Amino acid sequence: MCATCGCGHSHSPEVVTLEQKVLAKNDHLAAHNREWLTARGIRAVNLMSSPGSGKTTLLERTIRAIHARPVAVIEGDQETRLDAERIRATGSPVVQINTGAGCHLDAAMLRDALDRLAPADGCLLFVENVGNLVCPALFDLGEDVKVVIVSVTEGVDKPLKYPHMFAAADLVVVNKLDLLPYVDFDLDICRAHVASVNPHAEVVAVSATRGDNVDSWLDWLGD
Amino acid sequence: MCATCGCGHSHSPEVVTLEQKVLAKNDHLAAHNREWLTARGIRAVNLMSSPGSGKTTLLERTIRAIHARPVAVIEGDQETRLDAERIRATGSPVVQINTGAGCHLDAAMLRDALDRLAPADGCLLFVENVGNLVCPALFDLGEDVKVVIVSVTEGVDKPLKYPHMFAAADLVVVNKLDLLPYVDFDLDICRAHVASVNPHAEVVAVSATRGDNVDSWLDWLGD
Repeated sequence: MCATCGCGHSHSPEVVTLEQKVLAKNDHLAAHNREWLTARGIRAVNLMSSPGSGKTTLLERTIRAIHARPVAVIEGDQETRLDAERIRATGSPVVQINTGAGCHLDAAMLRDALDRLAPADGCLLFVENVGNLVCPALFDLGEDVKVVIVSVTEGVDKPLKYPHMFAAADLVVVNKLDLLPYVDFDLDICRAHVASVNPHAEVVAVSATRGDNVDSWLDWLGD
Repeated sequence: MCATCGCGHSHSPEVVTLEQKVLAKNDHLAAHNREWLTARGIRAVNLMSSPGSGKTTLLERTIRAIHARPVAVIEGDQETRLDAERIRATGSPVVQINTGAGCHLDAAMLRDALDRLAPADGCLLFVENVGNLVCPALFDLGEDVKVVIVSVTEGVDKPLKYPHMFAAADLVVVNKLDLLPYVDFDLDICRAHVASVNPHAEVVAVSATRGDNVDSWLDWLGD
């Protein structure tokens, strides 16, 4: 498999070797990020999902609910500063990374963003990855925990069809509970599919727009 | 930028050169696929979207509505044969490609799938790409047309945030019109955002589950 973006087969040994070097370099930089964050008592949460699963909406609600410690945010998107503007409106410090044609954040991008953001010691740092249920799973950023968000409109089969992402998750947030009455989605089946690829991942179901069960998510963050 | 998966910056010149070779090799194989398909009068449609936007549901409805010419399908997913089983239930010939950790189909995978599928001369061939709004945009498969599907639950900003995908599209299908009453989505704004990154792309809004306006999609396919 291609270590750069995980793109299947058909690559030459020459390409595979070089891509392994890219991942190894990323892991090295991620370890430095982790040391840097730990030394400052900063807890970093890597938020990953498909485009449009509600990462930014969940963040907006989360930031407005957290008062016990400072919060800071790093936003990743191919283009635009739209998400950073939404976060800034909450009062949280934020920087935007634009990846251009890129499909995920990497540890070097996080390092650069940390320099620009200068997050407060002891803060809770959210890193919203590029919307992509595939490639971000391969790239350690140096975060404490990985959270995967999936919305009820996407169907119950996503953990089975994109197992690498769900296998990497510490927590799976099932979002858009407000749309549950209008779609074919069984939460118990989704939980079973998550468990089948990752028995250790917790699952919390919420509605970020309406606020259902967001307390459970905040409790998880607090631990 | 990384030519293999488009993963932003921070790559060495050595990596960039090799990745350009990967893309050039893919383009060469795609050109062969295109020749092969054209010689057999096969029209190939590359369907791309985020995970859970409704590609397979749209295909199920489409296959059941088309009687004028034979249809065949190639399904792409990281894992499972779930989508191929859904397509097989419609009576259409289908093969499944599993990309493992891979984030997109490429021309070599299509070539291999064509050998296994042996599609009928003159057929309409649908290729359902891996659910990913980023990486599949970079890899020509040899298709006639690229169709990008986005659902109303994903929000209007996706063409701006993932411009490479929408810039590559011949048609944008806005799906899940049945959920429009329950979400914050303005179709006119979405159309304007598509036009801003791709003035030539047509936009058709449908509900694949309920059937709204699917005739417009079928008309487009017929042309």
